[in-house]
Amino acid sequence: MKNINLLGATGSIGVQTIDIIRNHPEEFKLTAVSGGRNIDGIRAILKEFKPELVSVLNREDAERLKSEFQDVTILSGNEGLIETAVYHKGDVVVNAVMGSVGLIPTMKAMEAGKSIALANKETLVTAGHIVMAASKKYETPILPVDSEHSAIFQALQGEQSKNIERLIITASGGSFRDKTRSELTNVTVEDALNHPNWSMGSKITIDSATMMNKGLEVIEAHWLFDLPYEQIDVLLHQESIIHSMVEFHDSSVIAQLGTPDMRVPIQYALTYPDRLPLIEAKRLSLADAATLHFKKMDFDRFPCLQYAYEAGKTGGTMPTVLNAANEAAVGLFLERKIPFLTIESLIEQAMERHKPIENPGLETIQEVDQDTRKYIESLY
Amino acid sequence: MKNINLLGATGSIGVQTIDIIRNHPEEFKLTAVSGGRNIDGIRAILKEFKPELVSVLNREDAERLKSEFQDVTILSGNEGLIETAVYHKGDVVVNAVMGSVGLIPTMKAMEAGKSIALANKETLVTAGHIVMAASKKYETPILPVDSEHSAIFQALQGEQSKNIERLIITASGGSFRDKTRSELTNVTVEDALNHPNWSMGSKITIDSATMMNKGLEVIEAHWLFDLPYEQIDVLLHQESIIHSMVEFHDSSVIAQLGTPDMRVPIQYALTYPDRLPLIEAKRLSLADAATLHFKKMDFDRFPCLQYAYEAGKTGGTMPTVLNAANEAAVGLFLERKIPFLTIESLIEQAMERHKPIENPGLETIQEVDQDTRKYIESLY
Repeated sequence: MKNINLLGATGSIGVQTIDIIRNHPEEFKLTAVSGGRNIDGIRAILKEFKPELVSVLNREDAERLKSEFQDVTILSGNEGLIETAVYHKGDVVVNAVMGSVGLIPTMKAMEAGKSIALANKETLVTAGHIVMAASKKYETPILPVDSEHSAIFQALQGEQSKNIERLIITASGGSFRDKTRSELTNVTVEDALNHPNWSMGSKITIDSATMMNKGLEVIEAHWLFDLPYEQIDVLLHQESIIHSMVEFHDSSVIAQLGTPDMRVPIQYALTYPDRLPLIEAKRLSLADAATLHFKKMDFDRFPCLQYAYEAGKTGGTMPTVLNAANEAAVGLFLERKIPFLTIESLIEQAMERHKPIENPGLETIQEVDQDTRKYIESLY
Repeated sequence: MKNINLLGATGSIGVQTIDIIRNHPEEFKLTAVSGGRNIDGIRAILKEFKPELVSVLNREDAERLKSEFQDVTILSGNEGLIETAVYHKGDVVVNAVMGSVGLIPTMKAMEAGKSIALANKETLVTAGHIVMAASKKYETPILPVDSEHSAIFQALQGEQSKNIERLIITASGGSFRDKTRSELTNVTVEDALNHPNWSMGSKITIDSATMMNKGLEVIEAHWLFDLPYEQIDVLLHQESIIHSMVEFHDSSVIAQLGTPDMRVPIQYALTYPDRLPLIEAKRLSLADAATLHFKKMDFDRFPCLQYAYEAGKTGGTMPTVLNAANEAAVGLFLERKIPFLTIESLIEQAMERHKPIENPGLETIQEVDQDTRKYIESLY
């Protein structure tokens, strides 16, 4: 039996994590959960799973829940999020919150000796060097939940990292994969949110359309698998059936494939190195899929991927700027304050004005993060 | 340093094994080799690698070589083949001989405590129950050299067999994959030997065209991975880039991919669980490949695959009959004594007349094998 502290329980990954816990009550128990503003969602989780600690975003929501669930510890805000992460009964923390707010809870959970199932990209993008050092120091593994990193992680089982030639991360191309750049000028939020393969949260769906999602994944892969950027490639693969691959230096390639069901990587992170049957899984039928397409990545078409490689190679605080500028710019796009292509130019601008600081501590990272957001928001 | 006893040194797999040994002299030493009638080939190996024991098919050839290489033990025939397999200095036996003659040397090598890198399908097809029992008894692993079984073996690293949902063996469709059955009536030996993806020996190329090769692989997979036939599927995949796959019960699929280079599985069997760089490997570029196609297997189009499943499920001596009838029929086709489609009907006839014997010993297997060949040959 594994006890799970789940951060971000009402988001897309959170809901699917809940589904896995529901389907395997003999394997998993939900000990602590955090949610945001979806109080009905949290209420339902409280009733069904009876976690011992719950945290929500706002104090008022917390007060309301306290009056309804008097046996449960109910907290709020960033502090509550951290308390959820470190709750003493949890063995594994599933970190499925969105954005760089996921960083400190991850750090605290590792200090408390917990394994991390990591769906929060920003944790590694903004502070990969600190997070990986902590993972080593506290001997707390970081298990990837992203489908691409899970694919690589699965492909690496039984292999030695010295034999890796390169990682090949696949990219569907997102909602606008068939559009030229000039066709992107007037796309709407609704167009952008219409991803061809995956049903995900809105931030990550926009990141797929700009290819920034893949850029963040490249940086994440660099840290998770301890490889230089020169050994991490991105390949366009519109069907999203091959989730990613590892090429070894004997030229053998191991790939992980499947239907687009995020429960597979989530569950693998929870059962690793074992597997459990996935209830109601739609099985892959390549005979029905019939054809898989592959295409060289086009960095001119998708400049955000280029920015991500540059930020990653520059290192220091540059990936923090990349990520914060992207979060702020995507926010402005979703609020319909800027057109789609301006997301890219804002990120480029933020990176150009930044003088990277080498080997930054958590405080510096948070300062740079805040400063970048303020800069972007100050423009509108 | 691994010492290698190589059976079938001048055949297609043998030559590629030699290439690997040549490229990694710090890792591998050729201690004993057997060849057939290609005495020039054996002579070249003797000069370059100085093995301590050599065996050829005919006594006269052996006598000739003895006069040329006086420090080397030179033997001939089946006895010589067995002596090559069990040569005391060898750690691994690469069994790359063709046909059911490969069985006894494999058995003797296991009794002598040697690991087996197995390219000889017939060993497992005709006597899988005996061979796998010996592998267990003598604790001598059998490492697959066939590209499909190596793919499955690689995909299974770090996994537990209880979690396997099914194996998916890919099939290119062979030389005649785009022909209908009626178009097969008048195909020639030359047509059949023209395989679209792999350059292999003539027997296996014909077996690819009839799909019997895949049938033998299904039976081999049944024994190697200890799975019922219901969990072994075959999928048409004309590019031969995905070499085979394993689906787990969480619906995750792990596949091994690569260019069609048999040195990859051969070398993996020799370096397992490690890998070594493959010298002059052509690396897979999926962006260049652009498209991978998949199609449901058509058992009416390829009845030999159906016969193989039937023989496998019937068990006992039936797979021996399948294999011996196929070897004899392919021989007749290569001698231009029968048309292509008669290969299939001869196998069907041989299976229909046979009353399978359950749990046969090696002697029974050899008797049935001989009897089947005689029957087929008696028809022409």
